[in-house]
Amino acid sequence: MKVLSGIQPSGQLHIGNYFGMMKTMISNMENSDLYVFIVNLHALTSVHDREKLAAGTLEAAADFLALGLDPEKCTFWVQSDVPEVCELAWILSTVTPMGLMERCHSYKDKVAKGIDASHGLFSYPVLMAADILLYQADQVPVGKDQKQHLEVARDVAQKFNNTFGETFVVPEPFISDTTAIVPGLDGQKMSKSYGNTIPIFLEGKQLKKKVMAIATDAIPVEDPKDPDQCNLFALFKLFATPERLQEIRNLYVNGGAAYGYLKLELLELISDYYAEARQKKAEYMADPEMIRTVLRKGAIRAREKAMVTLDLVRERVGLKY
Amino acid sequence: MKVLSGIQPSGQLHIGNYFGMMKTMISNMENSDLYVFIVNLHALTSVHDREKLAAGTLEAAADFLALGLDPEKCTFWVQSDVPEVCELAWILSTVTPMGLMERCHSYKDKVAKGIDASHGLFSYPVLMAADILLYQADQVPVGKDQKQHLEVARDVAQKFNNTFGETFVVPEPFISDTTAIVPGLDGQKMSKSYGNTIPIFLEGKQLKKKVMAIATDAIPVEDPKDPDQCNLFALFKLFATPERLQEIRNLYVNGGAAYGYLKLELLELISDYYAEARQKKAEYMADPEMIRTVLRKGAIRAREKAMVTLDLVRERVGLKY
Repeated sequence: MKVLSGIQPSGQLHIGNYFGMMKTMISNMENSDLYVFIVNLHALTSVHDREKLAAGTLEAAADFLALGLDPEKCTFWVQSDVPEVCELAWILSTVTPMGLMERCHSYKDKVAKGIDASHGLFSYPVLMAADILLYQADQVPVGKDQKQHLEVARDVAQKFNNTFGETFVVPEPFISDTTAIVPGLDGQKMSKSYGNTIPIFLEGKQLKKKVMAIATDAIPVEDPKDPDQCNLFALFKLFATPERLQEIRNLYVNGGAAYGYLKLELLELISDYYAEARQKKAEYMADPEMIRTVLRKGAIRAREKAMVTLDLVRERVGLKY
Repeated sequence: MKVLSGIQPSGQLHIGNYFGMMKTMISNMENSDLYVFIVNLHALTSVHDREKLAAGTLEAAADFLALGLDPEKCTFWVQSDVPEVCELAWILSTVTPMGLMERCHSYKDKVAKGIDASHGLFSYPVLMAADILLYQADQVPVGKDQKQHLEVARDVAQKFNNTFGETFVVPEPFISDTTAIVPGLDGQKMSKSYGNTIPIFLEGKQLKKKVMAIATDAIPVEDPKDPDQCNLFALFKLFATPERLQEIRNLYVNGGAAYGYLKLELLELISDYYAEARQKKAEYMADPEMIRTVLRKGAIRAREKAMVTLDLVRERVGLKY
């Protein structure tokens, strides 16, 4: 089973990303043929800042490696290091109906949010289809916002196969039903755009400031409270052992849950949970050449697969003369 | 002065193509740094037939080589053999405003003519901009139908330069004022879509059939006629020596121009004019490997130039990490 996931190089991952997507993605390397890549070509549709994109690419790689992605157990590379994807995107675009593209709401949503209405932004789903089809992925874990784009990839694969003969695996979406919903500091879904995140790699005072800012209610310590209505408790669920979680639940239900103390406890749990990852990330960031070496090795592996597909595609459409 | 021209691999060139575009293009190799390539990636927007595209690519190459394009005096290759152009197209698309694309009338015109409304057809001008900017062309000879696309290339080059720093030469259009207008068999402009052409490489009976079908008026032989109102005379202008042309003009003006005899004379002139080219083309077509060798050498040269530009572009936008 070939599973493919893209990673945005847009920096500062938070624990919502971790429990929402990264943890599952990383664990996929154990039971599937996992392809993970940093989508720097796609990022160009919203980032026009060389330094930011280059630094974001390296940092995204360091993040995933630090959090346990093992480049020996998966194929991990930077999108633009396999430029074949752009050629495939062009070829696919010639069998992609404009009507299909015009129905994609993500383009309009992004423009409404202030991203430049570029041709690249409009063409985003075609490049994404090329990413998926180039590696003949069977399954693509997608969030709700990317579900329509996966439909485009499926339609394009089928259209190409019908026009030129069986060539592409038609990929299946995978919408995880176990994905944890992680509340932010204010109780809304944790999201960079809400400014309510706890970044994974924070530590010390900065991390403390975030955790202490978790919104809680004003019910006196000794009164009973409903743990399932509390963000703080929801975050404990992610980090506490089942035993300790039960004890805390009891404190809520029976009275005696002091938010200040609980926050300090959560702080320690989060800090411990990511201690090894923080250490590893620091090592990678101190030696960018080590990151580059990992990514280049991954690109070589990815490119071998890509060339097989592209070679067949070139033959099928008549680019070989 | 770097001059760049694309060639459609769509087969059966006619003498309207020759005097309208090819002759000037080929002669450019003498006084400029000429880049000529067969646009098979663009052709995918209208051709979904492997055999047709592959054969058309080889034949277009044979046509130009036979008619005098000297691969030692220019850079001559097949578009898809320098796949860097697709990567540049993606990058450029991220600075190409959708509004600019939506104003291009060629897309709508083609759709109105029955070509599939694909995303690739819509994106045609971005790939064309990449073709031009990748080689840092100074000048691009364009017909009226491509003038707007060259404007897109200029706009995109300027936008990129403004966003990321001076990178691209902003190309100038070149609209030749000496381009001959070649009438077809029926007196309208010679064009494949009017079915009124005289293909360059016809010979024998087939060529005779075409030439004898040139429409002429019904004025008796001995009566005076206006040579400047006659298609047949217009075609003589392209093939007859100045002395013989003057004699024929006199026949028209003074009476005595017998169309049937004149057509036979024109037939011989055309046949002689392209005799060497026909011979050369037959040699090339009998040995496709010879064509491929020429094209591959050209692609190596083109790719060297392409890599220099693309390397700079990758640096500028932050794809190098």
